[in-house]
Amino acid sequence: MSRRRPGVSPRPTGTIESLGEFGLIGSIAAKVGKTPGIRLGIGDDAAMFGLAEGEEVLVSADLLIEDVHFRRRTSSARQVGRKSVAVNISDLAAMGATPRALVLSLALPTGLPSAWVRGFRDGFLTEAARYGAPLVGGDTTKSPGPIVINVTVLGSAHPAQVLTRSGARPGDRLWLCGEPGLSRVGLEVLESEARGFARARRAHREPQALPEQGRRLARSGRCSACIDVSDGLLGDLAHIARASGVGVDLELAALPLAAELRRWAKRCQRDPYDYVLNGGEDYALLFTLRDKAPAPGMRHAPAGFLRPIGTITAGEGIHLIHPDGSRTRAARGGFAHF
Amino acid sequence: MSRRRPGVSPRPTGTIESLGEFGLIGSIAAKVGKTPGIRLGIGDDAAMFGLAEGEEVLVSADLLIEDVHFRRRTSSARQVGRKSVAVNISDLAAMGATPRALVLSLALPTGLPSAWVRGFRDGFLTEAARYGAPLVGGDTTKSPGPIVINVTVLGSAHPAQVLTRSGARPGDRLWLCGEPGLSRVGLEVLESEARGFARARRAHREPQALPEQGRRLARSGRCSACIDVSDGLLGDLAHIARASGVGVDLELAALPLAAELRRWAKRCQRDPYDYVLNGGEDYALLFTLRDKAPAPGMRHAPAGFLRPIGTITAGEGIHLIHPDGSRTRAARGGFAHF
Repeated sequence: MSRRRPGVSPRPTGTIESLGEFGLIGSIAAKVGKTPGIRLGIGDDAAMFGLAEGEEVLVSADLLIEDVHFRRRTSSARQVGRKSVAVNISDLAAMGATPRALVLSLALPTGLPSAWVRGFRDGFLTEAARYGAPLVGGDTTKSPGPIVINVTVLGSAHPAQVLTRSGARPGDRLWLCGEPGLSRVGLEVLESEARGFARARRAHREPQALPEQGRRLARSGRCSACIDVSDGLLGDLAHIARASGVGVDLELAALPLAAELRRWAKRCQRDPYDYVLNGGEDYALLFTLRDKAPAPGMRHAPAGFLRPIGTITAGEGIHLIHPDGSRTRAARGGFAHF
Repeated sequence: MSRRRPGVSPRPTGTIESLGEFGLIGSIAAKVGKTPGIRLGIGDDAAMFGLAEGEEVLVSADLLIEDVHFRRRTSSARQVGRKSVAVNISDLAAMGATPRALVLSLALPTGLPSAWVRGFRDGFLTEAARYGAPLVGGDTTKSPGPIVINVTVLGSAHPAQVLTRSGARPGDRLWLCGEPGLSRVGLEVLESEARGFARARRAHREPQALPEQGRRLARSGRCSACIDVSDGLLGDLAHIARASGVGVDLELAALPLAAELRRWAKRCQRDPYDYVLNGGEDYALLFTLRDKAPAPGMRHAPAGFLRPIGTITAGEGIHLIHPDGSRTRAARGGFAHF
């Protein structure tokens, strides 16, 4: 349907049409460089790599769509490239797995400047290198609509060390690594074209995945459940509660309220806790520990980013423990894409 | 960005909005059923499965976009679901690998009838079951444009038995399993709303992957290179030639010309070989054998679908051997998405 035909006007320069499909793949493949640990990378019908003795393969995928998950006006191509990697690595971090390889599918509208593709590619590959997960394959096609990015991440782990959502038990302590709500503030700042709020902007445009933290948790043998906070803290906490068949007491006073978050909430006359509890796109780690000792990795996390925020109960649902000691049932929050 | 807000009108029934994101995931997950060989399926941050001793993991991905790769007017939701699986399995077939798991990312426009999603899901899961590759995870989101489907397939194989594009050597025989061109005829028939041509329609809307044939080739130890024909026979043959550093003599008289293909080409006053050589979306297997014996699996392929069609040479590029014995250099064909 998209075959070139005789008589079609020459491809414009400076847009992806001037590259062509195979030129585009080639331009990305040429930048990938050496991929240690990968037997077959880009260039065959499938990529191939092995696992260490006793390991299994883990896989997860995330879509990023222009004007749903990012805007070209408010995020650079490089930032979109970085984010598309980080949000996937975050899923593996929540399992305690080691990232091994990335697969990238790109649908691009005709007329898209080639500079956008180069920026995206560079951001993607920089972030992939940072997490040690090379790009090994994918697909590119034209899009009759927005830019569409799908990233699939593959990882490896020993089954006995993998973290799931279903192991939390009454009495376990609930911990948080990260600052939920800041990304949502960043999004609103960007959409409103306000000035300042540099940390919040960065949290939204350049989220950091926490695979090292996830691996430390997995290896500690003390972690009973873990999830990454992508749909809002309350929403993802509800996943742990449901999968584990437990309740949660969440201590509001223990939640981190970044200065920029407090300032933005005040300016918008909104409850700062609404951002923290229902923000979305946070890529924090939310996990439960079987004992009362500090979480592993305390010395590596920035001060205040890793803290206990509640307790697993034998009840049902999530309850908020207010600073005055009162206890109320939390209403469901989180992103709903439809 | 897509969070529900107070005051928004109730979700319409009969469209995906009435399902909600988690309802949609749940409706798919509920239909997946048991997944033997999968340690963790849908429902955690990542899926997980193991490999047999000595095996490695293979991975490939394909995008299908509405109005680029399919139209709702000419393909049913069920057919799109089936095709999105088959085209991915075909990549693993070309490597001689065993399909193990599928990951599905779906971006759906608001207002899409839920019946479309159900049809797609049923087609997808039927085809997944047929090839023994359960759905283990993915992502769903709304699309501000067309329906976007990305499928990532994971497989396993022993490295020594994997087929690549790069092993063809001068003197090897070139073989074809399938009927390239028929899918392109089917597409044109559907677009022109002509009657008849049932086989061609089916070739386009319900392509068959050939993983069994691929595995037989891999296990035979006689196959030096293999690719699946998705971008047109000439285009994909050029990939083998380039990756292997060889030339190819392609015998036109040996190529299969289905009756419907001949009939459609005649009606359109076009060269039937243009369909065969440059059709696209064929999902045939093109491979080279180191000896002159018949290809393994001859008894299992429908008559005429598995045949030798040329010879690997020490030269460069692809030459067509015409029925009169003359030899001309083939012009590059195949799909170009931009």
